[in-house]
Amino acid sequence: MPGFRPVDSLKSPRFCGVRTFMRLPHRTSVEGADVAALGIPFDTGATYRVGSRFAPAAIRDMSSLLRPCHPVFGIDVFDYCSVIDYGDISVVPGYIELTYEKIADGMKDLFDADIVPLAMGGDHSVTLGELRAAAEKHGPVALLQLDSHSDTWDLYYGKKYTHGTPFRRAIEEGLLQTERSIQVGMRGPLFASTDYDSARDLGLELIDTVQMAEIGIDKTVERIKTRVQDAPVFFTFDIDFVDPAFAPGTGIPEVGGPSSREALSLIRGLTGIDFIGFDLVEVLPQCDSGDITSLLAANVLYEFLALIAVRRKEAT
Amino acid sequence: MPGFRPVDSLKSPRFCGVRTFMRLPHRTSVEGADVAALGIPFDTGATYRVGSRFAPAAIRDMSSLLRPCHPVFGIDVFDYCSVIDYGDISVVPGYIELTYEKIADGMKDLFDADIVPLAMGGDHSVTLGELRAAAEKHGPVALLQLDSHSDTWDLYYGKKYTHGTPFRRAIEEGLLQTERSIQVGMRGPLFASTDYDSARDLGLELIDTVQMAEIGIDKTVERIKTRVQDAPVFFTFDIDFVDPAFAPGTGIPEVGGPSSREALSLIRGLTGIDFIGFDLVEVLPQCDSGDITSLLAANVLYEFLALIAVRRKEAT
Amino acid sequence: MPGFRPVDSLKSPRFCGVRTFMRLPHRTSVEGADVAALGIPFDTGATYRVGSRFAPAAIRDMSSLLRPCHPVFGIDVFDYCSVIDYGDISVVPGYIELTYEKIADGMKDLFDADIVPLAMGGDHSVTLGELRAAAEKHGPVALLQLDSHSDTWDLYYGKKYTHGTPFRRAIEEGLLQTERSIQVGMRGPLFASTDYDSARDLGLELIDTVQMAEIGIDKTVERIKTRVQDAPVFFTFDIDFVDPAFAPGTGIPEVGGPSSREALSLIRGLTGIDFIGFDLVEVLPQCDSGDITSLLAANVLYEFLALIAVRRKEAT
Amino acid sequence: MPGFRPVDSLKSPRFCGVRTFMRLPHRTSVEGADVAALGIPFDTGATYRVGSRFAPAAIRDMSSLLRPCHPVFGIDVFDYCSVIDYGDISVVPGYIELTYEKIADGMKDLFDADIVPLAMGGDHSVTLGELRAAAEKHGPVALLQLDSHSDTWDLYYGKKYTHGTPFRRAIEEGLLQTERSIQVGMRGPLFASTDYDSARDLGLELIDTVQMAEIGIDKTVERIKTRVQDAPVFFTFDIDFVDPAFAPGTGIPEVGGPSSREALSLIRGLTGIDFIGFDLVEVLPQCDSGDITSLLAANVLYEFLALIAVRRKEAT
Amino acid sequence: MPGFRPVDSLKSPRFCGVRTFMRLPHRTSVEGADVAALGIPFDTGATYRVGSRFAPAAIRDMSSLLRPCHPVFGIDVFDYCSVIDYGDISVVPGYIELTYEKIADGMKDLFDADIVPLAMGGDHSVTLGELRAAAEKHGPVALLQLDSHSDTWDLYYGKKYTHGTPFRRAIEEGLLQTERSIQVGMRGPLFASTDYDSARDLGLELIDTVQMAEIGIDKTVERIKTRVQDAPVFFTFDIDFVDPAFAPGTGIPEVGGPSSREALSLIRGLTGIDFIGFDLVEVLPQCDSGDITSLLAANVLYEFLALIAVRRKEAT
Amino acid sequence: MPGFRPVDSLKSPRFCGVRTFMRLPHRTSVEGADVAALGIPFDTGATYRVGSRFAPAAIRDMSSLLRPCHPVFGIDVFDYCSVIDYGDISVVPGYIELTYEKIADGMKDLFDADIVPLAMGGDHSVTLGELRAAAEKHGPVALLQLDSHSDTWDLYYGKKYTHGTPFRRAIEEGLLQTERSIQVGMRGPLFASTDYDSARDLGLELIDTVQMAEIGIDKTVERIKTRVQDAPVFFTFDIDFVDPAFAPGTGIPEVGGPSSREALSLIRGLTGIDFIGFDLVEVLPQCDSGDITSLLAANVLYEFLALIAVRRKEAT
Repeated sequence: MPGFRPVDSLKSPRFCGVRTFMRLPHRTSVEGADVAALGIPFDTGATYRVGSRFAPAAIRDMSSLLRPCHPVFGIDVFDYCSVIDYGDISVVPGYIELTYEKIADGMKDLFDADIVPLAMGGDHSVTLGELRAAAEKHGPVALLQLDSHSDTWDLYYGKKYTHGTPFRRAIEEGLLQTERSIQVGMRGPLFASTDYDSARDLGLELIDTVQMAEIGIDKTVERIKTRVQDAPVFFTFDIDFVDPAFAPGTGIPEVGGPSSREALSLIRGLTGIDFIGFDLVEVLPQCDSGDITSLLAANVLYEFLALIAVRRKEAT
Repeated sequence: MPGFRPVDSLKSPRFCGVRTFMRLPHRTSVEGADVAALGIPFDTGATYRVGSRFAPAAIRDMSSLLRPCHPVFGIDVFDYCSVIDYGDISVVPGYIELTYEKIADGMKDLFDADIVPLAMGGDHSVTLGELRAAAEKHGPVALLQLDSHSDTWDLYYGKKYTHGTPFRRAIEEGLLQTERSIQVGMRGPLFASTDYDSARDLGLELIDTVQMAEIGIDKTVERIKTRVQDAPVFFTFDIDFVDPAFAPGTGIPEVGGPSSREALSLIRGLTGIDFIGFDLVEVLPQCDSGDITSLLAANVLYEFLALIAVRRKEAT
Repeated sequence: MPGFRPVDSLKSPRFCGVRTFMRLPHRTSVEGADVAALGIPFDTGATYRVGSRFAPAAIRDMSSLLRPCHPVFGIDVFDYCSVIDYGDISVVPGYIELTYEKIADGMKDLFDADIVPLAMGGDHSVTLGELRAAAEKHGPVALLQLDSHSDTWDLYYGKKYTHGTPFRRAIEEGLLQTERSIQVGMRGPLFASTDYDSARDLGLELIDTVQMAEIGIDKTVERIKTRVQDAPVFFTFDIDFVDPAFAPGTGIPEVGGPSSREALSLIRGLTGIDFIGFDLVEVLPQCDSGDITSLLAANVLYEFLALIAVRRKEAT
Repeated sequence: MPGFRPVDSLKSPRFCGVRTFMRLPHRTSVEGADVAALGIPFDTGATYRVGSRFAPAAIRDMSSLLRPCHPVFGIDVFDYCSVIDYGDISVVPGYIELTYEKIADGMKDLFDADIVPLAMGGDHSVTLGELRAAAEKHGPVALLQLDSHSDTWDLYYGKKYTHGTPFRRAIEEGLLQTERSIQVGMRGPLFASTDYDSARDLGLELIDTVQMAEIGIDKTVERIKTRVQDAPVFFTFDIDFVDPAFAPGTGIPEVGGPSSREALSLIRGLTGIDFIGFDLVEVLPQCDSGDITSLLAANVLYEFLALIAVRRKEAT
Repeated sequence: MPGFRPVDSLKSPRFCGVRTFMRLPHRTSVEGADVAALGIPFDTGATYRVGSRFAPAAIRDMSSLLRPCHPVFGIDVFDYCSVIDYGDISVVPGYIELTYEKIADGMKDLFDADIVPLAMGGDHSVTLGELRAAAEKHGPVALLQLDSHSDTWDLYYGKKYTHGTPFRRAIEEGLLQTERSIQVGMRGPLFASTDYDSARDLGLELIDTVQMAEIGIDKTVERIKTRVQDAPVFFTFDIDFVDPAFAPGTGIPEVGGPSSREALSLIRGLTGIDFIGFDLVEVLPQCDSGDITSLLAANVLYEFLALIAVRRKEAT
Repeated sequence: MPGFRPVDSLKSPRFCGVRTFMRLPHRTSVEGADVAALGIPFDTGATYRVGSRFAPAAIRDMSSLLRPCHPVFGIDVFDYCSVIDYGDISVVPGYIELTYEKIADGMKDLFDADIVPLAMGGDHSVTLGELRAAAEKHGPVALLQLDSHSDTWDLYYGKKYTHGTPFRRAIEEGLLQTERSIQVGMRGPLFASTDYDSARDLGLELIDTVQMAEIGIDKTVERIKTRVQDAPVFFTFDIDFVDPAFAPGTGIPEVGGPSSREALSLIRGLTGIDFIGFDLVEVLPQCDSGDITSLLAANVLYEFLALIAVRRKEAT
């Protein structure tokens, strides 16, 4: 039975129709789907610029430019996965703990149905809710985080839940296999000279931008694979991983990062990993220029989809 | 049987979910609907700034701010009409005559089902396609046009079909009851000093901005009602009717126009008319600022909906 | 003893120096001051667009264009009041109830020292915190609210504290003399046809935009004065009171509102009232164009200052 | 002999070709011309936002939307005047006194050839250079100034030449018939409560925005005509005369001003005056939104042209 | 006899004067010129974002920053070529086949006079018209295309002429020496996994971005030279060849591309080739930020000019 | 005694409070400080785009994102230096020679107190004023200039003082040890093919972008150190040193430059040099996108601070 696939943009102009991710069918039922793109438009965790509540809409807009076939893997990703746009989690702006419940509930339905989620945040606080659902299904998961910040600080203004703290909370809650988890891309001035060591003390591996530049993309890929092995991996991509020139529309940009080309190259190396979920966070459309950040975000999500497709292809 | 109505924004945040007009259900079947909002994202007719192909998406975005109850008529419009977002006509960019066929075909389905269309252009060329469908159903219709331009020029660059010529074409094609048709709001420098007289020579009544300012909104409303009487009326609203301060995002802005408040006041006066279709054209999101043009466009469409609701209420 | 007054922009260019409100001294002590401008950069209450946390900075920027002498009252406002920039309340983004405490504490220091606050929000939720402090000092106060929304809804998403609910909460908490309180400028589609009546049922007087346009500015001023009489009045000005053409940079813009000229004219009529505090809320710099919203906000704050100065002049 | 007139935009699209004012021929010789549009891209006199050096280019861009026939006067303006785009005065950024010489020299060539200049500033400092040339030809001239500022301050930072001081200098230099000169539109906070009186003490008549609103446009026109009588008049229009909603792209915007419609109405009333020169100043394209300020500026220049055409028509 | 060269920006400020390419003389006659910059402001072929009709104006604006001497070749390019701004082809928006005729006619005049054209599009559809003129003069030409898309698709919406199809059409029309033609820079998701092979099946060589990154710029240059040999080459540069960080203002941006530095380096390697024409397409000013795309476009055109100059220098 | 250090952004949100550099105390006295950040908001020297008068405010805004600990040097910079925001030099817009006096006077106070200045321009003309003060204290200093332009031209429009001429002037005035001075990063078309040689003829070493790319960052660092040796060095960083993709907000952008990562890497190599002053110039906020230019500028200033801290640490 053929799965869900996008409208053909050679037949119907890309700018036509209600905007869904990649012009896929919008369905609130998961029946017949393998993968579900969904939005988590929550930005109450932001500590500086705010507005990623509009990211899912902006990414959907720019995703209409995507086409089905991957230029490097050489496959039509929809030949291997049936994909839907599942809409958005109905978050509660201003109320982070309640929203975590709603995220965890919403994601649970997907994990229970063996759907791989492609979540569009929202600020990085949303990942904690997603990890709760992932761990409920899979037990503690490995974390692969591409990000310019470790987001393992303890408290902001005395508060536990912000976009700077989700991974410390996740570890405290036992959601992660820390010994299989890895953070890549950290850079920028720090609150304390021990910030990176704190993340490592939590059990995480951390490769900062300077190290990544020294060892190169291929070796970084290898380090990731060695770390995660065959654990079930949740892949979280903070758009501020790339340099602000390539992603100006984000909340806490850090200069001196990798290019889009390097980021794509890194992701494309990650075939063979058992990814059980993905998210892409921290896009702020109102700080974007020429929509290049949303476009990059859409492409990263497409690369996620390709990783799923390649793995499914190899499994058959 | 209760009809289709919007998601409740007191329950689910306005920024959640795939963007439809007013957060209404997106349906490609008209069953159960009285009114259908739809996009006609075609801008090949534009003679200067271009980009209204993105207007339906932008108007849908801002329409999430609308609420169901009209502050002056005192009714919940969805108590009287069941409304859907019908998606977009699949236009063919660059090919205006072919697109006219697609518009006429798409609108015919609505008119045949006695659905009142709320169309979102697109540049003003699209109205010709809509009028063809309207006249096929209703015979020649009365035209009510709020616009800063008459759009009755004959040729641009020797060509018959542009956004400056649709109403001359419509008259030539016998689609209009010219003696029941009226244009309001013309202003700005002209190609020839006879431009307004040419429109009048075609049989149209024309009230320019200077006259409208002199006689006032109430008298203008009266002139319109006297003109259209009980004919079936197609109401076309070019967003450049209002001053560029209130609607900067448009293709051929003309300074010195009415305010939004005057425009709303005029529309609210038009109860009792037998409107069989509506469109709102010439929004250019990329020239907008703070999305105020798209927001105004969404409100004008809401006022159209209220006119329908009031008439349906009075009919019951 | 001469009070605090701005740097002279005929001597030092307006664009020089660390940005304070009107180029006034930044002081964290109230000693020697009669009036304190301060920021409350909190926007967690926002239900759609968000970002008023950056409003105090933007208003301070544009306030450097202001000059000391009022063109209608004919006085140098600093001859009658000593004014400082008191900095910002240290809010806690994402935590509204905690922030209310911080606002109330911060404002209490001002009220206790008989300082009149000129607060720069922030979204409209912040006013509840301010009113708590005002009422602690003055007992229940009269409210004068210029706004396109009544902000007396009960719950959003089941939650009591948002920018759409502060005045219902204030009444429930006994902070207002409802019989001396008045809301002016409401417009736009409503959630329920009873929305305005609900506000009136709470005891408030409400003049919507249509009524205001009918009776005119002078009569509106008269209605306000008749209502508030000699009560201590807290004046809250939501920038969305004016039309989006004049204030595009706001969270929930409503088309069809008054112009800046009408707004200034209304405020200038309000001499003789016993204002004990002021705020200006809902400026969103990232949606602004040409900084005109921030500039208008700065001017509104200046008009507040002039009302204080005129009253102090008359008292001497 | 037919004069110079614009390219026909019904034949060649408005967006084609090297950008000249109204698509007129660019000529560096005045032969055969009655009127010359020219740029004075100088902004060194600006005391806050800066960048009007790019105004002539921006106004030329938007002037391609203009059409030859005036909608109220009912004439093709090019039937009565032969008009060229004379290019720009080669100013010296950063050197105001040297630039004044260059402006005066450049304008002298026009006045000597009985050409009426339509100058596009630049900031308001440029008008002093223009007046020097005007007075050399005509002797002291009457000044008609529409502006939100009087620009008759004495010194900024101890310096005589800025965009806030040109008219005091012009009077000191004997360039004006002060008893035939009039300033209209002043508003906004002042440096001193005597600012308006200082302008009046210099011999000027001054009608501020509040007065203009009280007496109305028609009476304001009458006051202007009574003042200037049959003197040779230089008409200087600072775009900040209109409200920032209509002209956000300007250096020192002042809220609460007239609309574009009111401005056009005022200018259209000024037939019969002996205008010997015109300028339009203080457009800042980088602060504009949707190019509405540049468009308004182009329209004001067109209205100037219409005043010339009407007078020439009446003279024949 | 000295040729046409730019105004000296050390004498006259860059922002002065009517905007021509590089401040060169605007001439409608080719007499005395070796090279002609010209605009082809046509964007009806665009399948997503639209607005490259404004690209020639934007590129002319930013080209005022260019200076005559090449920093690597060490020559004043105008010592070897006399260059004019030839204005724009008078296209017909909305009518692509008619416009092709106008482009071919306009370019023919240049080719016939042995002028090398530097054309500024417009969307990529315009190149078909240019190639028709080139082939009429030179017979089938070699194509060098730097682009992120192959633009050899067959039909969009059943139509043959769009910006995604010009090179398939050119081959069908016999305009190209396919065995001397090469496309470089393709990337991004594809419609079909055979997209690149389809281009190769048409006889073209194709180097995608991944390959280019692997072999490096020098080897890519070598591959190009080996391919084109001494054929007459038409060089078409789609600005989307570079990454969107460097060229956000384009219609169909593709992330993960080369930097400006890599692009310049590649072009500078192409000395010794017999280029008979150049174009630069797909700049969309309204999506640009800080005008960096237009600036890059102007620099690419300047590099083209330098290639001509170097070849002419070597020939002497 | 502990020095001045920033507000802790883990305690108080970054967006709270009057904006100073890095949230440091604003002090007009230098007592207790080792380093002073200060603004020189002067842009009269600009020959094309203008507006760097707003750069200090924009950089202060984005500097609130900085944190105290350097990620590579591993130190809290404030453990080694006490830093204040000293406010702005009160420049005189339009009057460059007078402003030079004010800059020299203002900087002299800092140098006399052995404070290391971190100056935020302004356009590059301001550096001449700074060098005058530096040389008065230290005698002729070595210059380290990262810039895409040499800024050693002689005259613009016959004038000696602009942003293109400061270093020729500095050499003429005897302010530089030219044999210890070096310029890095030049690129873009030149006025004359001898432009670089002219700089070398003045005694400066010059490494252009092409050379820098060839030899790499490490070798460039080595060349700088070999050049400056142990001379007192003034480090001037023109933000146009980096590619416009990374710094679009600048006056004369030049495409094809290094990335932010390369720039940071270069600066971080410069430990061990005796820097006596720093400036960062040519940021134009109104041409920026997503504030990335201002953010990069803030980071460059932070790296300067780190160089000071490392040197002070090593000295202890």
